Amino acid sequence: MNSERGFRIGLLGRGTVGAAFEALLPQHAARIESITGLRPSLSGVLTRSGGGSFEQVLERADLIVELIGGIEPARDYVLRAMRAGRHVVTANKQLLSRHGEELWGVARTEGVQLRFEGAVAGVVPVIRVLQESLAGARIDRVHGIVNGTTNFILTEMARTGASLAEALAEAQRLGYAEADPSEDLDGRDAAAKMAILARLAFDTPVHIDQVSYEGIEQIQPDDLEYARELGLGLKLIGTAERIDERLSVRVHPAFLYPGHPLASINGPFNAVTVQSPTITEITMSGPGAGGPQTATAVLGDVISAMIPPASTPAAEHALEIAQDVVSAFYLHLEVADEPGVLAQLAQVLALQDVSVKSVLQKGLGDQARLVMVVHPLLESRFQAAMELIAGLDVMRAPPRAIRVLEEEFG
Amino acid sequence: MNSERGFRIGLLGRGTVGAAFEALLPQHAARIESITGLRPSLSGVLTRSGGGSFEQVLERADLIVELIGGIEPARDYVLRAMRAGRHVVTANKQLLSRHGEELWGVARTEGVQLRFEGAVAGVVPVIRVLQESLAGARIDRVHGIVNGTTNFILTEMARTGASLAEALAEAQRLGYAEADPSEDLDGRDAAAKMAILARLAFDTPVHIDQVSYEGIEQIQPDDLEYARELGLGLKLIGTAERIDERLSVRVHPAFLYPGHPLASINGPFNAVTVQSPTITEITMSGPGAGGPQTATAVLGDVISAMIPPASTPAAEHALEIAQDVVSAFYLHLEVADEPGVLAQLAQVLALQDVSVKSVLQKGLGDQARLVMVVHPLLESRFQAAMELIAGLDVMRAPPRAIRVLEEEFG
Repeated sequence: MNSERGFRIGLLGRGTVGAAFEALLPQHAARIESITGLRPSLSGVLTRSGGGSFEQVLERADLIVELIGGIEPARDYVLRAMRAGRHVVTANKQLLSRHGEELWGVARTEGVQLRFEGAVAGVVPVIRVLQESLAGARIDRVHGIVNGTTNFILTEMARTGASLAEALAEAQRLGYAEADPSEDLDGRDAAAKMAILARLAFDTPVHIDQVSYEGIEQIQPDDLEYARELGLGLKLIGTAERIDERLSVRVHPAFLYPGHPLASINGPFNAVTVQSPTITEITMSGPGAGGPQTATAVLGDVISAMIPPASTPAAEHALEIAQDVVSAFYLHLEVADEPGVLAQLAQVLALQDVSVKSVLQKGLGDQARLVMVVHPLLESRFQAAMELIAGLDVMRAPPRAIRVLEEEFG
Repeated sequence: MNSERGFRIGLLGRGTVGAAFEALLPQHAARIESITGLRPSLSGVLTRSGGGSFEQVLERADLIVELIGGIEPARDYVLRAMRAGRHVVTANKQLLSRHGEELWGVARTEGVQLRFEGAVAGVVPVIRVLQESLAGARIDRVHGIVNGTTNFILTEMARTGASLAEALAEAQRLGYAEADPSEDLDGRDAAAKMAILARLAFDTPVHIDQVSYEGIEQIQPDDLEYARELGLGLKLIGTAERIDERLSVRVHPAFLYPGHPLASINGPFNAVTVQSPTITEITMSGPGAGGPQTATAVLGDVISAMIPPASTPAAEHALEIAQDVVSAFYLHLEVADEPGVLAQLAQVLALQDVSVKSVLQKGLGDQARLVMVVHPLLESRFQAAMELIAGLDVMRAPPRAIRVLEEEFG
């Protein structure tokens, strides 16, 4: 690679993730150049229908992104790319869970990087954390929800009482399940991912055939209903754990009690918990699949392969620092216990466009107080209302306010 | 550095984290050698009381770990180390939030790495994720709980009704708060961390003085009590967000509704959520402080500095794959609606040492069923019990079983 021609990326496969990657790359090329010193661009794309040859794509590339999926010809291409001295980024869990040792061995021999964050839990950075952040930790257990399709289906079944077939149809309508969802439903997709995580966490080669797995095909709506009466929620859980210096890797449906950290992971999300005596545990969660999400993970890998990382780039596109922002507030008012107080306060609040969401009236006499939550507004406006309120005769003490974070997620 | 003498680490400071790092390094030296090809060792330690000089420690080191804390002499040492061509790993949030631009600039000029995962949220890999995984993403917001001391105190106040002073005393007793907790309580510690996260997420230099912050000193137990009636829980929240292409960075107490992803982060834990239109959001959580935890983050940085990462090491210490493991089970039995059925089943279960934790009896006649949860036992034993049960005359259908994950966390 040289800086005159930038950094050339050869893309194999233009499915959902490949197309998203192709769209993402030019949007971020300038920022990537400011981080790495090289401007990345797509130098070739190999598609099943589109003509061209792998040799041509390889010849013109500094790095190969493999998003074909499946075993062959993906394995052949990845091996040939590495033997030609190219770094490879892939999201191919099937390939790594069957031929990982061969591929990692060739990467070591050839001195090239083989990166695969997108193969497990999409953009949730579990691969990087196992390979880098926790490279110095002794890990006892990695477990979590690594299949978003089944997590969506189980969430829907529990929420609506739908059958598995109905929830699957809904998942397909929303793009959370493929036309042929059998590897998701029978647990094989999750088993491939757990084989990869187990390899990294325990330095132990794990082939997908060594992972025992059960899927969710046998789950009945009434299991979910009875379980709810017992206080349980259902997830498809993958586990890799050290037991008496042996390794167990498995995937199966499991009920969780509500306090469990994975119990609140709903819909198409993934979450992985890594446990180690030194660190207790780290949990990471986020969208487990999706074209743009997985393409973002692939792009992060591409950037890492372009440079030895951990350089903080110069601040070339700095933002201005803002002061006034919008917040909701909790408001605690110690007030005189007399008629008309609430009306008087409501009037002051209305003057500043402060809109009350909920209110509690507590205590009598010297203990009388109003506690309320107001809808989001500019903090400067709220401060103005607070100053007006502080000056009212009916206040027995200065008002107290604490911000309220509204739910703005998924 | 050369491979004969291994990789030499000079340690500045031997407080809680420094001592934990010194203990951790030899335990993991062999594994690190198998990843990087070089065996790391401590070549010198500089302590306030212990004699020796910075020059001596620097001379004998390939990399400097700075765990002195505070501004000077930490700043001087870090600058001199980088100008002498050494990589530096630090956990010094005060230093980075005040002199980050100077330090990052020198790191770029000198072509050395300056890593600082331990400076924010301990071993929770938020720095690495912002710098590497999401280097290709446009980030809209980073927010979370980045001070474990105040999160422990607020959790205790809500749980027990304790005053702030009582909860602080408990935190100090358990080692979650320092003798002088003022920077935790007044929000300054969290503000320093948010300045660093904002710099990385938004490519914008942020000095701690540009972060508006409020602490938890003013929080009264009755605020927590009334808020609970409104369905709210209190956290100290740090936020860095893009608002109309300006940047707001702030720290303040805030109430959360129970469905909020940060609402379930309790005790001394930290959690950070990164939001971006492409990826929706990633949340990472784990212990936010503690000597061994932060030392693990420092060690991960050291390993990354030793090699361009993303090499999957050869499997030199592979584990044997285990088959039989211990699980709890949910058991769904369609049974004849006649006297003595439960007794008969209980007898079969007892024979295989299956111990029942809870049981529901549902329906009548053709709908009669027993749903139970049994305590953890070897799966092979449970399968044997299932086979016996399947053979009983009182069963109207094959038994159905689903695993139950017990809460095994903090």
